[in-house]
Amino acid sequence: MTADAVRVPVSLGERSYDIVIGDGLLADAGSLFRAVLPKARAAIVTDVNLANRHLPALEKAFLAAGVEASAIVIPPGESSKSFEVFELVVDQMIGGRYERGDAVVALGGGVVGDLSGFVAGVVRRGMRFVQIPTSLLAQVDSSVGGKTGINVRHGKNLVGVFHQPDLVIADTGVLDTLSEREFRAGYAEVAKYGLIDDPDFFAFLEANWREVFAGGPARGHAIAVSCRSKAAIVARDERETGDRALLNLGHTFGHALEAATGYSSARLVHGEAIAIGMVLAHDFSVRMNLMGPEDAVRVRRHFETVGLPTRLDQVPGGLPDADGLMTLIAQDKKVARGALTFILSRGVGRSFIARDVPPEAVRHFLAGELGAA
Amino acid sequence: MTADAVRVPVSLGERSYDIVIGDGLLADAGSLFRAVLPKARAAIVTDVNLANRHLPALEKAFLAAGVEASAIVIPPGESSKSFEVFELVVDQMIGGRYERGDAVVALGGGVVGDLSGFVAGVVRRGMRFVQIPTSLLAQVDSSVGGKTGINVRHGKNLVGVFHQPDLVIADTGVLDTLSEREFRAGYAEVAKYGLIDDPDFFAFLEANWREVFAGGPARGHAIAVSCRSKAAIVARDERETGDRALLNLGHTFGHALEAATGYSSARLVHGEAIAIGMVLAHDFSVRMNLMGPEDAVRVRRHFETVGLPTRLDQVPGGLPDADGLMTLIAQDKKVARGALTFILSRGVGRSFIARDVPPEAVRHFLAGELGAA
Ligand SMILES: NC(=O)c1ccc[n+]([C@@H]2O[C@H](COP(=O)([O-])OP(=O)(O)OC[C@H]3O[C@@H](n4cnc5c(N)ncnc54)[C@H](O)[C@@H]3O)[C@@H](O)[C@H]2O)c1
Ligand SMILES: NC(=O)c1ccc[n+]([C@@H]2O[C@H](COP(=O)([O-])OP(=O)(O)OC[C@H]3O[C@@H](n4cnc5c(N)ncnc54)[C@H](O)[C@@H]3O)[C@@H](O)[C@H]2O)c1
Ligand SMILES: [Zn+2]
Ligand SMILES: [Zn+2]
Repeated sequence: MTADAVRVPVSLGERSYDIVIGDGLLADAGSLFRAVLPKARAAIVTDVNLANRHLPALEKAFLAAGVEASAIVIPPGESSKSFEVFELVVDQMIGGRYERGDAVVALGGGVVGDLSGFVAGVVRRGMRFVQIPTSLLAQVDSSVGGKTGINVRHGKNLVGVFHQPDLVIADTGVLDTLSEREFRAGYAEVAKYGLIDDPDFFAFLEANWREVFAGGPARGHAIAVSCRSKAAIVARDERETGDRALLNLGHTFGHALEAATGYSSARLVHGEAIAIGMVLAHDFSVRMNLMGPEDAVRVRRHFETVGLPTRLDQVPGGLPDADGLMTLIAQDKKVARGALTFILSRGVGRSFIARDVPPEAVRHFLAGELGAA
Repeated sequence: MTADAVRVPVSLGERSYDIVIGDGLLADAGSLFRAVLPKARAAIVTDVNLANRHLPALEKAFLAAGVEASAIVIPPGESSKSFEVFELVVDQMIGGRYERGDAVVALGGGVVGDLSGFVAGVVRRGMRFVQIPTSLLAQVDSSVGGKTGINVRHGKNLVGVFHQPDLVIADTGVLDTLSEREFRAGYAEVAKYGLIDDPDFFAFLEANWREVFAGGPARGHAIAVSCRSKAAIVARDERETGDRALLNLGHTFGHALEAATGYSSARLVHGEAIAIGMVLAHDFSVRMNLMGPEDAVRVRRHFETVGLPTRLDQVPGGLPDADGLMTLIAQDKKVARGALTFILSRGVGRSFIARDVPPEAVRHFLAGELGAA
C-alpha cells in the first residue's frame, strides 16, 4: 500500500469498516479487498466514463491479488438511478451467480455508488459491498454512511436501503480526470464539513483551496478530514433519526433548486445547488437574528472565490417564484408532517438543527432573494 | 381484544415485536395497531381475494380506532411477487405521501406479505410494517421473521431485504374462507415445526389434526406453537447464517419440485411440494443410516392421512429425471459454493443441519424414488 495512505474508521459496531484514502490506491485495491473479504468474488459496477479511464487499472489490481472479477457497465448520469437500471443490474448480479458472501464493487461517483449499494442491499437479501468512489463528492460524502437508493418520478432517493460497505477505497489521484466543474461541485460538500462544526477546517480551506484543487497532500488532507467528520456524525446516528440531519446544511434550499431545474445537470449539479443553498442558509440565519452578517459574508466570498454559484440569479434558465420554491421545499422528503426543519447556523462551524421554522419567514426571505436578482 | 388472544413475543432487541393470535382479532386490529404505532397512517396492501372478503372488516376496525387508512389492491398469486408489481406499489406508496413513520399493512397470504414487506423495507429507506396474515402458511411462517422479497426470472425470493414487522395480527377465524387445499398446504409448515425439534407437538397433531382443520382452540394452539417455534429460531439467528436453516426442512427437495413444475400452483403449491420434500428428507435420512424406518413411516402416514401428497408420482404432469432434479437442487439458493447443505433427521423432532452431503448419494436416492414411481 502507498506509504502515505490514511485509514479513517467508521465505528458502527459489527458493521464497522475503514475508509482508506491515498494517492494511487487503485493499484492496491486487490490486496485491500482481499484483506477484508478473503474469499469473495467481485462484481464491479461502473459507468461508461470510468470504464474507459480507471476500470483497467482496477481489473489489473484484482487480477494481481487473485480476486475473481467481472464488470457491469451502466450509462453515466443521474438517470441511471432508476428502477429500470436497478432491475437490470440485479438481474446480471443473479445471472452471474454471485452469492451473499460475494461483493458488489462500486467504481464511480455517487450515482454508481447509490445504485449498486441498493443492489448489494437486496440481492439475496444482502451481499458484501465495497465502494471505490471516483468523484470528489463520492469520496467525501456519498460513499460514507451506508445510504443507498434510486429515484422515482416523485423525487430523488425515495427508494433504497441502509447498507454499509465493508470497505471504502478513495484514490485521490483518480480525481485528476474529473472535470473541473464536477470537482468544484464536490468541493462544496468538503466546505460543508467546515461550516457544520469545524471552523478551523473552513479556515484551512480558505487558505489552501488552490492546493486542494491541484492535488497532492492538501487534497488528501481535506478528503480525510471530510470523511472523519461524516464518519463521526454517521456513527452517532446511523439511521438519520437525529444529528445526521446536520449533513443537510444547504440541502433543503439546494434540493428545491435541483427540483426547480428539473435535475438537469446542464443547468445545475448537486454541489452547485447546495453551494447556493448554504449561502442562503447562512443569510437566512442572519435574517433570523441567529448570527451577525460577517460570517455569512465569509461563506459567500469563499464560494465565489472558488468559482461556485452563490446567488439565485446564477441559476441558468430562471426559477419559479417564492411560492413555487416553497411548494418544492414542502415536497422535500426532510419535511415531516408539515413542520419545516432547517439546518441553520450561529456562525462559521456552528450549525444546528432548527425545527419548526416558520414557513412564512422562509417564503418572505426567498421572495426578497428572488427580487434582488 | 378477544379474551382468549395469545401473544407470542419475537425477541430481536430493539426490533422485537409481538404476534397476537386469536379468533376474531380483525375487529380489534385498529386498537392493536394504535397501541404499537400511536400516530401512523396505514397503507393497506392486499390482493383481490382478500379485498372482497376481509378488507371491509379491517377498514371498519381502523376507522373505529381513528387510524387513517387506504388500500392498494394487487392481483392474487405468486406472479405478483415481481419487479413490476413491486414498482407499482412503491409508486403508489410514495404518491400517497406515506412517510417513514407510517405503516405498510399487509392483509393477505405470503405473497402480499413478502411483497409489501419489501416495499416497507425500501420506501424512504424503511417504513413501519404490520402483518395481518390471512393464510395458514402466512400465519405460521411467512409473517414471522422479517424475510421479505420478490422473485426474478432466475428463481424465487432472490431479491429482498430483512425487515421486521412492528406487529403481527393473526386472526385464526379468517382462515375459514381459505380453500381446503391452501389450508392443507399451510398445515405442512405446521407439521414441520414438530418434525424439526418438537416430537410432542407432532404427536399432538397426529391426534388432533381434524380439530386444527375444523377451527377453534386446537387451531389456535397449533398456530401459537408454530409461531413460538419459529420465533425462537429467528431470535437465535435473525439473518439466517446458522440455525435458521432448520426451517428449510423439506425445502431443498421441495424447491426443486416447485421449479420442476414451473411454480404452477395448478400443479403444486408450496406446502404440497415441501410435504413431499419432508417425506423425502426422512426417507433419505433412513437411507443414510441416520435413523430407523419407523419414524419416516410415521411422517409419510400422517401427511397421507391429512391428504397431502407424499410421493414424486403424485406430482401432476411428470418430473425431470434424477439429473434434472439435481441441477435444480444445485441452483437453489441454499447451495453455497457447490457443497450441498441438507436438513436431515435422526427421528421425529430430531432434525439437524447436514453440510457436505455427497451429491452422488442424493442423485442415487432420487433415481430410486423416480424409478419406484
Ligand atoms: N448516498 C449518499 O449518502 C449520497 C450523498 C450525497 C450524494 N449522493 C448522490 O450522489 C450522486 C451524485 O454523485 P456524483 O456527483 O459523484 O455524480 P456521478 O456519479 O454522476 O458523477 C459525476 C460525473 O463524473 C463522472 N466521473 C466520476 N468520477 C470520474 C473520474 N474520476 N474521472 C472522470 N469522470 C468521472 C461520472 O461518470 C459522471 O459523469 C447523486 O445521485 C446524489 O443523490 C448520495
Ligand atoms: N417470508 C418468508 O419467510 C416466507 C416463508 C414461507 C413462504 N413465503 C412465501 O409465501 C408465499 C406463499 O404464501 P401463501 O401460501 O399464503 O400464498 P398466497 O399469498 O398466494 O395465498 C394463497 C391464496 O389464498 C388466498 N387467500 C389468502 N388468505 C385467504 C383467506 N383468508 N380467504 C380466502 N382466500 C385467501 C390468496 O388470495 C391466494 O389466492 C410464497 O411466495 C412463499 O415464497 C415466505
Ligand atoms: Zn449533498
Ligand atoms: Zn416453506
